[in-house]
Amino acid sequence: MPFVTVTRRLTFNAAHRVHNPELSDLENARLFGKCNNPNWHGHNYVLEVSVRGEVAPKTGYVVDLAALRDIVAREVIDQVDHRNLNLDVAFMRGVIPTTENLAVGIWRILEPAVAPAKLVLIRLWESENNRVEYAGE
Amino acid sequence: MPFVTVTRRLTFNAAHRVHNPELSDLENARLFGKCNNPNWHGHNYVLEVSVRGEVAPKTGYVVDLAALRDIVAREVIDQVDHRNLNLDVAFMRGVIPTTENLAVGIWRILEPAVAPAKLVLIRLWESENNRVEYAGE
Amino acid sequence: MPFVTVTRRLTFNAAHRVHNPELSDLENARLFGKCNNPNWHGHNYVLEVSVRGEVAPKTGYVVDLAALRDIVAREVIDQVDHRNLNLDVAFMRGVIPTTENLAVGIWRILEPAVAPAKLVLIRLWESENNRVEYAGE
Amino acid sequence: MPFVTVTRRLTFNAAHRVHNPELSDLENARLFGKCNNPNWHGHNYVLEVSVRGEVAPKTGYVVDLAALRDIVAREVIDQVDHRNLNLDVAFMRGVIPTTENLAVGIWRILEPAVAPAKLVLIRLWESENNRVEYAGE
Amino acid sequence: MPFVTVTRRLTFNAAHRVHNPELSDLENARLFGKCNNPNWHGHNYVLEVSVRGEVAPKTGYVVDLAALRDIVAREVIDQVDHRNLNLDVAFMRGVIPTTENLAVGIWRILEPAVAPAKLVLIRLWESENNRVEYAGE
Amino acid sequence: MPFVTVTRRLTFNAAHRVHNPELSDLENARLFGKCNNPNWHGHNYVLEVSVRGEVAPKTGYVVDLAALRDIVAREVIDQVDHRNLNLDVAFMRGVIPTTENLAVGIWRILEPAVAPAKLVLIRLWESENNRVEYAGE
Repeated sequence: MPFVTVTRRLTFNAAHRVHNPELSDLENARLFGKCNNPNWHGHNYVLEVSVRGEVAPKTGYVVDLAALRDIVAREVIDQVDHRNLNLDVAFMRGVIPTTENLAVGIWRILEPAVAPAKLVLIRLWESENNRVEYAGE
Repeated sequence: MPFVTVTRRLTFNAAHRVHNPELSDLENARLFGKCNNPNWHGHNYVLEVSVRGEVAPKTGYVVDLAALRDIVAREVIDQVDHRNLNLDVAFMRGVIPTTENLAVGIWRILEPAVAPAKLVLIRLWESENNRVEYAGE
Repeated sequence: MPFVTVTRRLTFNAAHRVHNPELSDLENARLFGKCNNPNWHGHNYVLEVSVRGEVAPKTGYVVDLAALRDIVAREVIDQVDHRNLNLDVAFMRGVIPTTENLAVGIWRILEPAVAPAKLVLIRLWESENNRVEYAGE
Repeated sequence: MPFVTVTRRLTFNAAHRVHNPELSDLENARLFGKCNNPNWHGHNYVLEVSVRGEVAPKTGYVVDLAALRDIVAREVIDQVDHRNLNLDVAFMRGVIPTTENLAVGIWRILEPAVAPAKLVLIRLWESENNRVEYAGE
Repeated sequence: MPFVTVTRRLTFNAAHRVHNPELSDLENARLFGKCNNPNWHGHNYVLEVSVRGEVAPKTGYVVDLAALRDIVAREVIDQVDHRNLNLDVAFMRGVIPTTENLAVGIWRILEPAVAPAKLVLIRLWESENNRVEYAGE
Repeated sequence: MPFVTVTRRLTFNAAHRVHNPELSDLENARLFGKCNNPNWHGHNYVLEVSVRGEVAPKTGYVVDLAALRDIVAREVIDQVDHRNLNLDVAFMRGVIPTTENLAVGIWRILEPAVAPAKLVLIRLWESENNRVEYAGE
């Protein structure tokens, strides 16, 4: 059977502050500029989750995208939506909440959660101009 | 000369908490749900500013949209971008930072600032599914 | 208090056939072309529902958009999503299921359902190139 | 029968130079900046044509949008697509090719061409951030 | 000469029913939910066709995208647009008309049809949230 | 540390003429059709620049996207925005200004300019339906 990649798009929004607590305030301000605002700022994030596999003859699906959506909603969206990425999100504890680290964190949650489907890409937009992609490497 | 409406789109992002300080925490939680998160959340806002007037024969413009953009950037975007709408924004002091109140606040700043151009509409998206429009009434 | 228009966007998909049962097959084919395919075709529809009112001082909202979304989901989306507009949808019985008639039908359901909020516009896209607007006139 | 507004979206691209031949080069450069480049620049334009009328009981249409598209394609798109708005377009002769003047020119061509349908709005994007609207006033 | 991938986007709409005729109605309902509606539903599909090759010095093109568009329009769009994927489309006979199988079917038609250009990816959106990709493996 | 790809989107607009000066006018017209208009046409281009690397523990960034944006703005956008790709752009001299060649030219400028970040993809849209990708091969 053919190997196909299927992708589900979901959205969430969150507050964050790009800040490294091991550095001085001055160094943080210099490194992160307005993204370091101590009173936070926030984004509407767009998340794409891609899994890959053979098309099952019985269903014509790689995976049931409604089931995939439910997993992502429960494991990721419910943890981050309308939250503060620095304060409220267990899987982001101890890392700077950049889009890069958020994508990596989402991968680590979803890779086992979507099994036996095979996660192949996390794509995450922080704004219409900025996005990151993580493939588990 | 013909009367034409011209619109400039700009974006910003901000943190906020939908919260009425005159109500109890319980009442706030009941009214605003996850938008009341005390640790904030945030959005990428999309702002459209529309002005209307006669096309000037000398320029073929209603207004120079680059000049309009500069006014909106200085008077609005610089005040709200990468900020906390509850804590950092002078023109939002004392109002609940909903998209409705934010659009009204932006109107009140821009109406005099764009004169002699005539402001006719503020359109503001909080997310791809929610937007508000205010025409000064 | 200021008067603001707030808009909620929702999506659904459906099959339909543009067909007037009072006309001959030949006349239907001539009038509606490929939209008259007896085996149906379909669309992803995008629906925008706009209501207008004063901003409530207690909430900063015209209406709670989450509540508006729930009304539209229950009264409209649940009736039309993944359905056949000619066969499955009670409120479309006896009318040709064009985008125009669908927008009018949605208005007639939502106008009482959203009260006391005041419905002011139904905007409905059938494709990225075609849309209709109905304001109750 | 209900009155509905229907809108058709089309795209084209063109080169232009924002330049007033009655002014000096210096004055043109001051007024129009980089839009005055003597070697031209260009845009992908997005055009929305809105007509309004009663829904016809026989068809469920205000107008046949495929027929409207054909009129706009023949009367407007074929004149401007892959053209130079200053040099190649008869209906822009003698006016500065701003988006405002282009929208007005398109209105003047389409208002009689779409009759008996009633043209109510021309909306024209020059870029994702700039657009104009003309309603014939 | 450099190797470049060029992509052409086209759209179509169709009705379908996700249904496996070898399973019982109950099993179909359980597997496919509302996508199994016996009265059909439908989508606006977005198709991206990517081919890859060396840039030809004579033209600066990998392929003439207008010619590629004509091939895709004739070989694919004309077969599926405003059609029922279960009933009307020869190349979908005997397969469940999921987006996965549709993308694979389109690949099998286009791979020989675009030769000597080398097809490298079919990307197909069923909705703004769901898409699949097939690279011929 | 994980390897992540980060992408920055920027836009510009330009005039061009697809024309091979080594061929006759007739041959150019035959090969390039309306894209060969001697009076030029133009586009709003969308450019995505992707770089890839390890996430730096100190910043949580692969690269500072604001710094990347400044490099692309200075090295590319300032050279092409509101310009004529055939006449005004040094790095396009001697090549036919197709989207393919423009993407390759942008790659050649940015690969050294973004170092030590590693450029991995240039993606360039000429219109909403046509795009090219170049990965340096």
